[in-house]
Amino acid sequence: MKKIEVIQNVLEANEVIASRNRQLLDKHKVFAINIMSAPGAGKTSLILHTLRKLKDKLRIAVIEGDVASIVDAEKVQSEAKAIVQINTRNMPESCSLMAAMIEAALKGLFLDTLDLLLIENIGNLVCPAEFALGEHKRVVISSLPEGDDKPVKYPLIFIDADAVIINKMDLLSHVDFDIAAFRRSVTGLNPKVEFFQLSCKTGEGVEQWCSWVWEQVKTNTRGR
Amino acid sequence: MKKIEVIQNVLEANEVIASRNRQLLDKHKVFAINIMSAPGAGKTSLILHTLRKLKDKLRIAVIEGDVASIVDAEKVQSEAKAIVQINTRNMPESCSLMAAMIEAALKGLFLDTLDLLLIENIGNLVCPAEFALGEHKRVVISSLPEGDDKPVKYPLIFIDADAVIINKMDLLSHVDFDIAAFRRSVTGLNPKVEFFQLSCKTGEGVEQWCSWVWEQVKTNTRGR
Repeated sequence: MKKIEVIQNVLEANEVIASRNRQLLDKHKVFAINIMSAPGAGKTSLILHTLRKLKDKLRIAVIEGDVASIVDAEKVQSEAKAIVQINTRNMPESCSLMAAMIEAALKGLFLDTLDLLLIENIGNLVCPAEFALGEHKRVVISSLPEGDDKPVKYPLIFIDADAVIINKMDLLSHVDFDIAAFRRSVTGLNPKVEFFQLSCKTGEGVEQWCSWVWEQVKTNTRGR
Repeated sequence: MKKIEVIQNVLEANEVIASRNRQLLDKHKVFAINIMSAPGAGKTSLILHTLRKLKDKLRIAVIEGDVASIVDAEKVQSEAKAIVQINTRNMPESCSLMAAMIEAALKGLFLDTLDLLLIENIGNLVCPAEFALGEHKRVVISSLPEGDDKPVKYPLIFIDADAVIINKMDLLSHVDFDIAAFRRSVTGLNPKVEFFQLSCKTGEGVEQWCSWVWEQVKTNTRGR
């Protein structure tokens, strides 16, 4: 007897589509990373660094999520092999990318020509935590000026993260941010998480992050 | 014949409750300000400054909105006349305060003993833009490290703001932020908005903000 799938709400529907996206990406051997943060924490800058560092080794596409505008897509377009901008302003959910939006975006990409897909989610620490997109890894950026209490206030997004990046390390002496306390809060929620401390402004620490991305893609491809 | 009210969706339902909240606040002569921003832009710090500056002239209560935790409520409790913490983690909408949450919180306050209600919304530039709470003024804080492109990416929250505060002015020489460009973007969306440039860290500019709040409360009370 065939299993009858009953979708009861928007989150379940999202999971179904996310799982379909993941299968499609796996079939074409594309590794996908969902990059999440508060507004202005440095998602686009991190993507730019990653593109510049890895574009000679990997074929990289970017999906840019924003409520409105194409300013981020314009910033990365010269470095990415392909780019799709999603504006959520008039969508049912404007505060996060959702799996159905990624499904539509994937139709606009030639997946066989790609190794890595970087997805820049909407700048928000609440909604993106709830919606899987079909990604292989979930990354959260926290930047020093936001303060070290973000894991306490927005736990869900940290619980499911594979890696947490502490950005804007160049501002360390100008802001109040207890790195040890922040890391303790995050590992209290999520003991297996990987940490990176870097500055997209100075480039300090970006190398380690890019090495990790490179390793993830290699391991994933070998495992298939 | 009595008017039959038809509520068709969650936004309309929210408007109805917001309008009821506003009537209740007006009846008790309480002036309410809804303070919105991205995570870590300085809502709690601004509320603390406002309490310290105005608590001898005005009886002030605070409603603290957070997805989880009571850390902000703990910070302001010694300065506020009354405080209610709302945690949205398990509510239907966790990414913004909604009018129904404020309605419940107002039941926990003795409104006749208050002049001013400061509402700290969830740290988020998307969802809070959509939900009126019954407030008299809407204030958005942008902090320099977030970058000057936030009005371009999150226009809705700026369109409806009565005042926009540029916080963390102490970091001006350490970050890339074009104040003139930011202000042009905001006034392009919302020509009548008031601007304040301040630093909650050094206290620079806080005086002007507090004077504005004081004027709003006085004008509002006189007009009744």
